[in-house]
Amino acid sequence: MKVKINNKVENYRSVWFESASGIIKAINQNKLPREFEIIELKTYTETANAIKIMTIRGAPAIGVTAGFGIAQACMQVPKQNFIHYLEKAADILKSTRPTAVDLFYVIDRILNKIKDTDNAAEDNEKATEISISEAQKIGYETVDACKKIGEFGNEVLKNNSKILTHCNAGALACVDFGTALSPIRIAKYTGKEIFVFVDETRPRLQGAKLTAWELLNEGIEHRIIADNATGYFMQKGEIDLCIVGADRIALNGDVANKIGTYEKAVLAKENNIPFYVAAPLSTIDFNIKVGGEIPIEERSEDEVLIVNDKRIAPIGSHALNPAFDVTPAKYITGIITEIGILKPDEIYKLKK
Amino acid sequence: MKVKINNKVENYRSVWFESASGIIKAINQNKLPREFEIIELKTYTETANAIKIMTIRGAPAIGVTAGFGIAQACMQVPKQNFIHYLEKAADILKSTRPTAVDLFYVIDRILNKIKDTDNAAEDNEKATEISISEAQKIGYETVDACKKIGEFGNEVLKNNSKILTHCNAGALACVDFGTALSPIRIAKYTGKEIFVFVDETRPRLQGAKLTAWELLNEGIEHRIIADNATGYFMQKGEIDLCIVGADRIALNGDVANKIGTYEKAVLAKENNIPFYVAAPLSTIDFNIKVGGEIPIEERSEDEVLIVNDKRIAPIGSHALNPAFDVTPAKYITGIITEIGILKPDEIYKLKK
Repeated sequence: MKVKINNKVENYRSVWFESASGIIKAINQNKLPREFEIIELKTYTETANAIKIMTIRGAPAIGVTAGFGIAQACMQVPKQNFIHYLEKAADILKSTRPTAVDLFYVIDRILNKIKDTDNAAEDNEKATEISISEAQKIGYETVDACKKIGEFGNEVLKNNSKILTHCNAGALACVDFGTALSPIRIAKYTGKEIFVFVDETRPRLQGAKLTAWELLNEGIEHRIIADNATGYFMQKGEIDLCIVGADRIALNGDVANKIGTYEKAVLAKENNIPFYVAAPLSTIDFNIKVGGEIPIEERSEDEVLIVNDKRIAPIGSHALNPAFDVTPAKYITGIITEIGILKPDEIYKLKK
Repeated sequence: MKVKINNKVENYRSVWFESASGIIKAINQNKLPREFEIIELKTYTETANAIKIMTIRGAPAIGVTAGFGIAQACMQVPKQNFIHYLEKAADILKSTRPTAVDLFYVIDRILNKIKDTDNAAEDNEKATEISISEAQKIGYETVDACKKIGEFGNEVLKNNSKILTHCNAGALACVDFGTALSPIRIAKYTGKEIFVFVDETRPRLQGAKLTAWELLNEGIEHRIIADNATGYFMQKGEIDLCIVGADRIALNGDVANKIGTYEKAVLAKENNIPFYVAAPLSTIDFNIKVGGEIPIEERSEDEVLIVNDKRIAPIGSHALNPAFDVTPAKYITGIITEIGILKPDEIYKLKK
């Protein structure tokens, strides 16, 4: 992704792994847009914590980071009884966030690769080698999938399209390109003018903080709106289509994504506005039939009650803070993946 | 309304007029819930400014305050060419907020009363007397209407009802009792247990700051939620009904209210949840046929971009900040007024 630093444009990924030193480097998403900081994560427990406190966030980025975390664990857990300790480390990484499936997908994929390779489960050096190679591969696959999502998604965008997006499903959330923001980037690169309504996405404000920052860096026109104003602009005919990301997709095409996604989808349907979900196939959970089975993370009430270090609510009042919701398949026009735009009712066919 | 100060409960109105000194006193709504401050407004220009910067807010409270402001103007404008200057003062008061109709209703009602009284338009003392008496009367009428709204609204509430409200349509917004919060208060007083979902109401957070504060003072159980989470709780069947206020009602039953109201109404319909608007008859604009004719205030982008004195968005990004939206009549179950609960399509019948 493009990042403007002191009027110079540089290219960054949201997270990467320096295999030789075993250090994960990542853009600190909790400090944006105020400060552009690259953090270093040296141990798998530091990595787990960075996922938990959302220094690194976004379903695909969480997955890739956890993959790098497994590689760190291979280097760091005791050599005696290696696979036992590696699985304990994997559990720590898995326990950080419950909703995004990429986390579990990536960790299991690497663990299985180790277990399926002769002697690797007993040989920490061999396991390290496998995990580094597989984690880096997943990183490249993610970038590649996101780029393809952008190319397929670009086909539904016209010159001067006005698009609503929710939360940040951008390069920050996905190593590069993004899911929902990838079609917008590719459209811009292919010469289309695009206008983006960025809803601020309370409580953590990933829209106002992260999506706006990405669009600004790419020179894409946008305006931030309160989450409450989405319906107003839809009703006025100012939004042509919606594109959001996904944290987990069920076999029936139901989609779990950032809290508020369901609201935008209902409003889009009511106003006859196409509603697209953009996600790599790794976001599909083939073990889950319907959205209702997807676990929804409850985060701290302080995310609602405290903004910019100051409490907004009276002392004595409490908040409820579900971090995700489920948008039923019937509200979704199409799911933009790296293999093309699928109808939600085509998802189950991918189970093989 | 009940206000707990140092563990003592005192009774307050949100705004009142001390006729002898010509001073308006009001709760400073911009300082809640952090600080309970009574401000003094000594001139009609100070009063106009307090409405503009939302020290006093909420359609009925704005109306009553503007009435007191007219009384101040009668005392303060030049005696020579009195009615001319009074109308100029009225224009200043009217130019503060464009959407809530109560402002215009109250000012015109008092001006007409002055013009209809022999010699009052040339006699500033007589006009002062009339305006004080009429403004105080409107204040009492508002409290009385809100109390009746509470009694009629209470009839649709059951013991253990779980209610969603949006923004603050409470005693703060209405001198006392409130519109949307009045049925909830009366239900509590008549022994019902009520649970309120308070959506925070970005960008100005009147839900989290003001509605939560009122409910806390009344000992009514509530939880604050991000605006994005309303759909989630509706979908889970946790909201039994919605009650919101109104800033202006068109003859066809369309309702302008705080930005986001339309979203909640669409979501309520989609989830088969009754959606009530609570408002005194003074909120009906008999000159406006449909909601689309209601002027919608655009407020400063800083309300979106800056929270608690800190900027949330990157420098260079801009925001759009419509302060109200229009909920079409078809989404509204009933309009709770001081004469009973009306269907939206009965509103036009009140035009006489």
